[in-house]
Amino acid sequence: MTTGTALLTDQYELTMLQAALAGGAAHRRAVFEVFARRLPGGRRYGVVAGTGRFLDALEDFRFEEQDIEFLCSSGIVDEPTGEFLAGYRFSGNVYGYREGEAFFPGSPIMVVEGTFAEAVLLETVALSILNHDCAIAAAASRMTQAAGDRPLIEMGSRRTHEYAAVAAARAAYLCGFASTSNLMAGHLYGVPTAGTAAHAFTLLHDSEEDAFRAQIDALGLGTTLLVDTYDVAKAVRTAVELAGPDLGAVRIDSGDLAVVAVEVRRLLDELGASRTRIVVTSDLDEFAIAALAAAPVDAYGVGTALSTGSGHPTASLVYKLVAREDHTGRLQPVAKASVGKPSVGGRKWAYRRTSGGTATAEVVTREPVETEDRPLLAELVRDGKVVGRESLEAARDRHRATLAELPLEACSLSPGDPAVPTIFK
Amino acid sequence: MTTGTALLTDQYELTMLQAALAGGAAHRRAVFEVFARRLPGGRRYGVVAGTGRFLDALEDFRFEEQDIEFLCSSGIVDEPTGEFLAGYRFSGNVYGYREGEAFFPGSPIMVVEGTFAEAVLLETVALSILNHDCAIAAAASRMTQAAGDRPLIEMGSRRTHEYAAVAAARAAYLCGFASTSNLMAGHLYGVPTAGTAAHAFTLLHDSEEDAFRAQIDALGLGTTLLVDTYDVAKAVRTAVELAGPDLGAVRIDSGDLAVVAVEVRRLLDELGASRTRIVVTSDLDEFAIAALAAAPVDAYGVGTALSTGSGHPTASLVYKLVAREDHTGRLQPVAKASVGKPSVGGRKWAYRRTSGGTATAEVVTREPVETEDRPLLAELVRDGKVVGRESLEAARDRHRATLAELPLEACSLSPGDPAVPTIFK
Repeated sequence: MTTGTALLTDQYELTMLQAALAGGAAHRRAVFEVFARRLPGGRRYGVVAGTGRFLDALEDFRFEEQDIEFLCSSGIVDEPTGEFLAGYRFSGNVYGYREGEAFFPGSPIMVVEGTFAEAVLLETVALSILNHDCAIAAAASRMTQAAGDRPLIEMGSRRTHEYAAVAAARAAYLCGFASTSNLMAGHLYGVPTAGTAAHAFTLLHDSEEDAFRAQIDALGLGTTLLVDTYDVAKAVRTAVELAGPDLGAVRIDSGDLAVVAVEVRRLLDELGASRTRIVVTSDLDEFAIAALAAAPVDAYGVGTALSTGSGHPTASLVYKLVAREDHTGRLQPVAKASVGKPSVGGRKWAYRRTSGGTATAEVVTREPVETEDRPLLAELVRDGKVVGRESLEAARDRHRATLAELPLEACSLSPGDPAVPTIFK
Repeated sequence: MTTGTALLTDQYELTMLQAALAGGAAHRRAVFEVFARRLPGGRRYGVVAGTGRFLDALEDFRFEEQDIEFLCSSGIVDEPTGEFLAGYRFSGNVYGYREGEAFFPGSPIMVVEGTFAEAVLLETVALSILNHDCAIAAAASRMTQAAGDRPLIEMGSRRTHEYAAVAAARAAYLCGFASTSNLMAGHLYGVPTAGTAAHAFTLLHDSEEDAFRAQIDALGLGTTLLVDTYDVAKAVRTAVELAGPDLGAVRIDSGDLAVVAVEVRRLLDELGASRTRIVVTSDLDEFAIAALAAAPVDAYGVGTALSTGSGHPTASLVYKLVAREDHTGRLQPVAKASVGKPSVGGRKWAYRRTSGGTATAEVVTREPVETEDRPLLAELVRDGKVVGRESLEAARDRHRATLAELPLEACSLSPGDPAVPTIFK
């Protein structure tokens, strides 16, 4: 894996650059906008995630000598374009919604200003990061809403690309998950990590009792024992016999979780282990979590559905040229007229309107306005320098505050209209 | 991004290791198996992909000093476990189905032999890679079958995580795609790259004519002009006026593609550009590609559906302990009994049975057998050393040969039973 991010790019960005350099339009000032025409699956709100990762990728976006050599020797670009790329550093400005913020159809969640040449090259990596991370965040946010006060553990790494898994753990934490199983996410982003045990650990031993004893001896009474390798009731009895009433938790990973959780709770209480918690896993998504609200469950582990965006693995975000300098030097709004894929031309500003603490509209304007509505675009990059970095904890706090502000319909798991309308002014 | 792959791991692999080290079972010989209980979405066959990437990840799977420091200082593992990890090198054997090969429910597509300690640690990264790449490959293979002789261009990078995009391009090429837009896939894996132009290039210029002229001047007559920014018919006329009858191709990215392609073909022919090709894009999947079989289309560009696995972004593969040494030193088959998630214990061998050149069964045995059926497990790693690397071209050839061998039902795009049954002996 090369360390730079510049080749995480679609070829046509470079061939368009080559044509624009040769034709003379490459250095026109340009404004690109990232937005979604719709929210996938009739979801009520989107969640911005990935901005921090985009800023990291932008700082690493440089064409190294070996990249240029590859591009020129394969005939992908000509020598003059290769020379331009060798000196490439983004020197423009980026504005964006902060991570954790909600968004709606038409929200300009990122605005990139620069020359056409420098801004067009960022399309692929910006969309890859934002489409992935926003898709995970949208699913994660619905899951944390469905889980209420019960903690969620992200454990979907094995169901998605090995590096997508790291980003997914980050996005899940941003949206309120308590922890992740992914160690790289712990190391790189400081996401709290957690884990229980797999069936393999029980199967490794000559008996379930041997396995539980080894786990308790090594990891302490606070550990979580997996109780569904053979017979659940028998395993729970063995667990409490060995650990006593201070056993941390048991995990159930199969069967009808609502029914089994009730049986396990009753048994644990009978055995005096009333403080021992019950963790459930097994293909949980936001609907299954909601359905378990009345069951005696203390924590949820979520795998596949989290790391694949619960049915919607990408966020429908596009990166569109909305304004560019014309031959007279003036910035002009532009928009394509393709059937079914309209865009709204012009640089945008965006504000969240609230009434009595509840969001009522997403207001998108063509000029900055004096308003009591909350401005949504923050300065992220000024003259090529990253100025808008913030901590994951700050983003997590923002997400909580943003959710609290959305109208009640936003909690609905069924498909429908966005929770607030977008008003173009 | 750290360069090692060892932290692309779920925490519980390490805590299980710690408990097994302390309890004494860590060094028991063990066999893990990767298989799928079912094929997602009623697909007729799975496709093995990612094995080559797994071998790369295995060679980079080392806990560096900073990783150990993170794990110990966060309290994730104790000092003895940290010491074990510092010296960790996989020293066992890996067998696997070759990339491009078809697989079915229960096919043991990878078998990992080693001590429990060394083999359990590979679970997460093996599954991440195989679940992702096999999911993309399954979708890609259906698309190439639907496209027949027409070439497919992979252009889904912007819809998925930036590094997942690179792996997706690789898997698509393995399954018969002609090329990818992803430059990193070109650089790292030698996948042929391709590209057209975006609406932004047209919008950048003061007129569509200016844009087309700049593109033709810079990239030659063989280029592909995007003709749906404003009015398709007008754009096609402009394109042929500027380029003449030798224009390479036009791309249509919106509207009812079957209808628009007919109109554009008629117009191109009228204008004398009968050799100019038509490339279509716009949310194509295997069903849309099949529906365009009768339309005058020369190539398909596939984005979202490819890089998200066309509705099934993960391949349902699991990594299960199927045998381990007992206290007497004998290797014993093991299997869990969890409700709805059974596994079949014991080390497996697998063979493809054919009759008259057509596959009739996937035969899975507990012992190697003398048979005319084709053995499917190849040696990939011997005593920790990678011995089974092969080229992407070899895998691409194998996929073509494997598909040719499957019964006709395998081509069906509708949900149903696997194309051949799996027989456990």
